[in-house]
Amino acid sequence: MLRRWAPLARLLAAAPAAADDLRASVRAWRQANEAQVVRELAAFLALPNLASDTAGIRRNAEHASAMLARRGITTRLLETPGSPPAVYGELNAPGARRTVMVYAHYDGQPVDPSAWATPPWTPTLRAGTLEDKAAAVDLATLSRPIGGEWRLYGRSASDDKAPIVVAMAALDALRHAKRPLSVNLKFFLEGEEEAGSAHLQALLEAHRALLKADLWLLCDGPVHQTRRPQVYFGVRGVMGVEVTLYGPVRALHSGHYGNWAPNPAVEMAHLVASLRDPEGRILVAGFGDDVRPIAPAERDALRSVPPVEDELKGELALGRTEGEGATLAELILRPALNVRGLESGKVGSAAANAVPVEAHASIDFRLVPDQTPAGVREKLEAHLRGLGYHVVHETPDAATRRAHPRLVKLEWGPGYKAARTPLDQPAGLALVRVLEQGAGPIVKLPTLGGSVPMHLFGDVTGAPVIGLPIVNHDNSQHAANENVRIQNLWDGIEAFAAVFVGLGSAWPPP
Amino acid sequence: MLRRWAPLARLLAAAPAAADDLRASVRAWRQANEAQVVRELAAFLALPNLASDTAGIRRNAEHASAMLARRGITTRLLETPGSPPAVYGELNAPGARRTVMVYAHYDGQPVDPSAWATPPWTPTLRAGTLEDKAAAVDLATLSRPIGGEWRLYGRSASDDKAPIVVAMAALDALRHAKRPLSVNLKFFLEGEEEAGSAHLQALLEAHRALLKADLWLLCDGPVHQTRRPQVYFGVRGVMGVEVTLYGPVRALHSGHYGNWAPNPAVEMAHLVASLRDPEGRILVAGFGDDVRPIAPAERDALRSVPPVEDELKGELALGRTEGEGATLAELILRPALNVRGLESGKVGSAAANAVPVEAHASIDFRLVPDQTPAGVREKLEAHLRGLGYHVVHETPDAATRRAHPRLVKLEWGPGYKAARTPLDQPAGLALVRVLEQGAGPIVKLPTLGGSVPMHLFGDVTGAPVIGLPIVNHDNSQHAANENVRIQNLWDGIEAFAAVFVGLGSAWPPP
Repeated sequence: MLRRWAPLARLLAAAPAAADDLRASVRAWRQANEAQVVRELAAFLALPNLASDTAGIRRNAEHASAMLARRGITTRLLETPGSPPAVYGELNAPGARRTVMVYAHYDGQPVDPSAWATPPWTPTLRAGTLEDKAAAVDLATLSRPIGGEWRLYGRSASDDKAPIVVAMAALDALRHAKRPLSVNLKFFLEGEEEAGSAHLQALLEAHRALLKADLWLLCDGPVHQTRRPQVYFGVRGVMGVEVTLYGPVRALHSGHYGNWAPNPAVEMAHLVASLRDPEGRILVAGFGDDVRPIAPAERDALRSVPPVEDELKGELALGRTEGEGATLAELILRPALNVRGLESGKVGSAAANAVPVEAHASIDFRLVPDQTPAGVREKLEAHLRGLGYHVVHETPDAATRRAHPRLVKLEWGPGYKAARTPLDQPAGLALVRVLEQGAGPIVKLPTLGGSVPMHLFGDVTGAPVIGLPIVNHDNSQHAANENVRIQNLWDGIEAFAAVFVGLGSAWPPP
Repeated sequence: MLRRWAPLARLLAAAPAAADDLRASVRAWRQANEAQVVRELAAFLALPNLASDTAGIRRNAEHASAMLARRGITTRLLETPGSPPAVYGELNAPGARRTVMVYAHYDGQPVDPSAWATPPWTPTLRAGTLEDKAAAVDLATLSRPIGGEWRLYGRSASDDKAPIVVAMAALDALRHAKRPLSVNLKFFLEGEEEAGSAHLQALLEAHRALLKADLWLLCDGPVHQTRRPQVYFGVRGVMGVEVTLYGPVRALHSGHYGNWAPNPAVEMAHLVASLRDPEGRILVAGFGDDVRPIAPAERDALRSVPPVEDELKGELALGRTEGEGATLAELILRPALNVRGLESGKVGSAAANAVPVEAHASIDFRLVPDQTPAGVREKLEAHLRGLGYHVVHETPDAATRRAHPRLVKLEWGPGYKAARTPLDQPAGLALVRVLEQGAGPIVKLPTLGGSVPMHLFGDVTGAPVIGLPIVNHDNSQHAANENVRIQNLWDGIEAFAAVFVGLGSAWPPP
């Protein structure tokens, strides 16, 4: 492959100096406008953004649309029946031969406000981390520079509003430096990614022409744990299921009826234990049948991923890891079964000596190519039938409960499959080159552990899809006290600016 | 044994007619005073009675003491350092040669108010059951008769305030009928039974002379599921433990870290599954070593227990029972391990795709003779060590978590052992005879499934201890919407009256 790029390599020999200039001017703009950038993000984070909150989601879409419009981007809201609006934007570069689509999502994961130090939609800047008990800083009256290790706390601070604001800041910096874009830009900001992207395919299909691009850049997920920039060429798919088992219709005194009335919490323990072992191995028969073997280029790229395991174990106070010593980057190339919740009866001071009436487990699966949600569902249900369970998908009535010694209710989320773009594809090679001119060697991940519906972008638009994440890994994404590290915003602005200015010339002609 | 009682049997040949007279006059009094009895119970149920609520517990003790005093019972509150007060009472019968102690407890189990149809300490009379959507009836203005199938809802309606009020009503009925007591009565009403009776032994020992009696009657637990009266000669012991497992110190995105960061919910499933199987068999090595074999008289008594399993399975919508077909009465002669709660992460609409930080299981054990709480603790901890767990009893710091690949925190409740009085003991034979004269054949249970600290009464006072329960089995004891069935109050008044009037003469001379 290298021979083919040799003329291009010569062409780019002078590029590092140009990249340095660009970086210096973007940085100078940022240093002069730090509070403004963080305030723009905080204003966006102040809008509650659960996909289930229709009115709130629309306020977010209109807010994002206005942010784009302020940069001269032509915007419109794209909708299909029942969908939250997606924000679409277009910014053409005179003479550019390529179009790059920037994807992010503006909705956020559900919250448990009682677990947050400050309310999830009250963005709070701290001069460090909560773990270090850093004090909150009043953003409205802030006059000093903002430290790179400061954090901004709030739902979606990282996942996934930060990249939207960072892209806008990059455009502001380029306009100030009078540096032209080398590619046409399009934007597609989704409003239900955290709820499973149920309408994404319909949206993409309904607006196929509008959404045509030569590369989709997915600005979701974190940079590497070493804080080095990374790009990812794939993502895992995702699938969720709520599992319910039934005990007696009313809670029973555990002395009078315990070890006679079936205990659903005990049954759930056995059910969950039958699904996977403590090392993460999935025990469902045939679960790995559809797993595509790792390509040689992917295995090569794994070797470029810096080790992070020991540091993470310290940071997370872990006495062990799953996977029998495999690295994190290796493990996320495999499918996963995560128990995200267990609930039955009561524990601690609320515990009563009773046989619980129900037991619940909430499970999310991570899929790899070429697994499908339908295949996962079929295999799990076959596994449970093999254990003697009668599987239902609606709440069973008393007659159904009487009729089946083992009865399980499964409520499946929609889910979607994984995706992986080949690592030796021209757009990807150009993207890596431009980023490495700016920031030195970056991490090239064959797949990210997390899930975005990357497969749809490729399947519907036919374009290559590559992930360009911005935010820190230690952002408590999906949990309480989600945050973004300020230096990641600054680095992100430089990365986006480098891509917007440099990608067009680094990319071989069509 | 029968030969020995032959003279007594002749003496009692005329007794059934006398028993009928007594029952008729007690019933007539009750029919004239139904609302008054239920109102007295409701007033008692209106007092919050968690053992942890010191002020509330004292209000209950004073209220109970006043109820006793209104019947001419000499009362005092017994206390030891740190204990809630126990209510003690004494009512002597001129010429009586025997003294019977009536035990009940006035504290109640913890509540989850959100699960109650009406607040736990707002007693609510309904003209039937909640399940049948029976309407609430205003007790204050009630003028019609109270149906036997009506229910009074409230925490401790059955467990265990009803027997206290029923005993008072029996005394009122006897006074009205001018029927003298045949035994001296004493009362001991405990205030922390549901919290593990931590001070009971100290109380009994401190007041050993005062608490001397020839028979302790434990008025806790329910009558048989067929609604037939029953007495029980033993109880299971009890022991509780809170189990905590640890994942990462902060919740982690399940895509980026799932199947690398250890999932404590999965580990908990494996831990719980290692403790017992879905049939109720305890898998902890040596757990059954201390179990005393069933005596022949106990096995005989089992045959007199009517089958209830099929009806209960229908009522509870059960598709199976644990114990591989053994009867309920057989199963409660065995030790039991009940998982009363599981909690990790979140389920349902609150579920987020994250690796949980902790997993909790709450377990209660039921012990049989001659198991001890210390033995249970030792065996469980040895079992967990055998699985590779490092066992701690306090919340571990980060260094401890880092140092141990498998780490479990166990927080043990105090617990107490089981007890069983021989079935062929004179006081028991007399009690059964008196009750059967009034109500026909009763159920004689070698042991109740539930737990009261019966062993302490026997160990400290040396008296035989027999259970005489009053309340219905379907009372949602220990759970939401606890209730008492009104007919059980009426039957209880007649049973207590029969014992108070008849036991002295049915009992062979000392």
